[in-house]
Amino acid sequence: MAVKVYGPHCASTKRVLVCLVEKEVEFEVVPVDVTKGEQKDPEYLKLQPFGVVPVIKDGDYTLYESRAIMRYYAEKYRSQGVELLGKTIEERGLVEQWLEVEAHNFHPQAYNLCLHGLFGSLFGVTPDPKVIEESEAKLVQVLNIYEERLSKTKYLAGDFFSIADISHLPFLDYVVNNMGKKYLLEERKHVGAWWDDISSRPSWNKVLQLYRAPI
Amino acid sequence: MAVKVYGPHCASTKRVLVCLVEKEVEFEVVPVDVTKGEQKDPEYLKLQPFGVVPVIKDGDYTLYESRAIMRYYAEKYRSQGVELLGKTIEERGLVEQWLEVEAHNFHPQAYNLCLHGLFGSLFGVTPDPKVIEESEAKLVQVLNIYEERLSKTKYLAGDFFSIADISHLPFLDYVVNNMGKKYLLEERKHVGAWWDDISSRPSWNKVLQLYRAPI
Repeated sequence: MAVKVYGPHCASTKRVLVCLVEKEVEFEVVPVDVTKGEQKDPEYLKLQPFGVVPVIKDGDYTLYESRAIMRYYAEKYRSQGVELLGKTIEERGLVEQWLEVEAHNFHPQAYNLCLHGLFGSLFGVTPDPKVIEESEAKLVQVLNIYEERLSKTKYLAGDFFSIADISHLPFLDYVVNNMGKKYLLEERKHVGAWWDDISSRPSWNKVLQLYRAPI
Repeated sequence: MAVKVYGPHCASTKRVLVCLVEKEVEFEVVPVDVTKGEQKDPEYLKLQPFGVVPVIKDGDYTLYESRAIMRYYAEKYRSQGVELLGKTIEERGLVEQWLEVEAHNFHPQAYNLCLHGLFGSLFGVTPDPKVIEESEAKLVQVLNIYEERLSKTKYLAGDFFSIADISHLPFLDYVVNNMGKKYLLEERKHVGAWWDDISSRPSWNKVLQLYRAPI
């Protein structure tokens, strides 16, 4: 039975979809139009009480939070498709560390940048140039630390691709390709090489082509 | 060799310490005085480039981000001490889901409440009553969802204690006991019973007594 993935057009859902493609797990998508507020519909809230996407249904099993869903499928299909958690407990620890860094250091800045510079009007948010400026300045600090890290290892958690890398794809794509901030990568050669590598993976390009964002 | 834990007096570090006590892992602490900005010292930044606590050193292995460190030790010592990740991959998935909910829904509100209502003056933050009011209102919405969840299962991820529960201890303790907001629990009987259960664990009381917060 295919995994049902709700809200495939949203950025956070794309983390899950890339993970499923990399793990060769069959899925079907269920549209949730967040620009119409469908994630707050009573039926949807029964699946995801916080009213955000994504959520998955896999038989009787329901799970939400994109990074939790990635961990679940990377673990459940450990020996199928691409290994996404590292090979040892120590490598897994570093995957977890960089996934947390993505969530707490990278994401808030990239999200605010996109909310105020890209898709805010879809959600009734008035762009605030000060937020854009401050978010980009903070994002630069984060990317400087990534540059140092990626001068030593090919991917964030080590010399292996992982869910920590996948987790950056949707919002870094918005920043670089939809907001025209490719210079953030060009000014940092290791971050640039890492981005070229992960963003050219067939899994990401398949998800991008199949589920266009509503922006 | 004992695990070195940096910054034991800080709330986020206490997540790690409780986890280590529950897993019966020997540790020693290294003070980092964040009220003096020691987390920005060049030597510390070599361990944790983002300049926050905690970080651990375990022989040659260095790891940061409190929730990543908890996952690492819960996995490394799976058969030692209390099981903190659930027994099955599906239970682990729910642990991850609620750990993400803690990080993205509970923590930002509890942190802002504490920053503006409790310890902001230590860090040069001027308390903003509007932030306090809004953060509490949002926290109430989160706790209402917890109440529904905890009416069905004893702990957040299921009928088993996990790192998802541990992760709430430091900041919910601040809110309830240091900010005098016990009514948030009294108005929600299942959240209240859950809090009474997890906050009475010997591991938490040991950590609270040994490493007083600087507030």
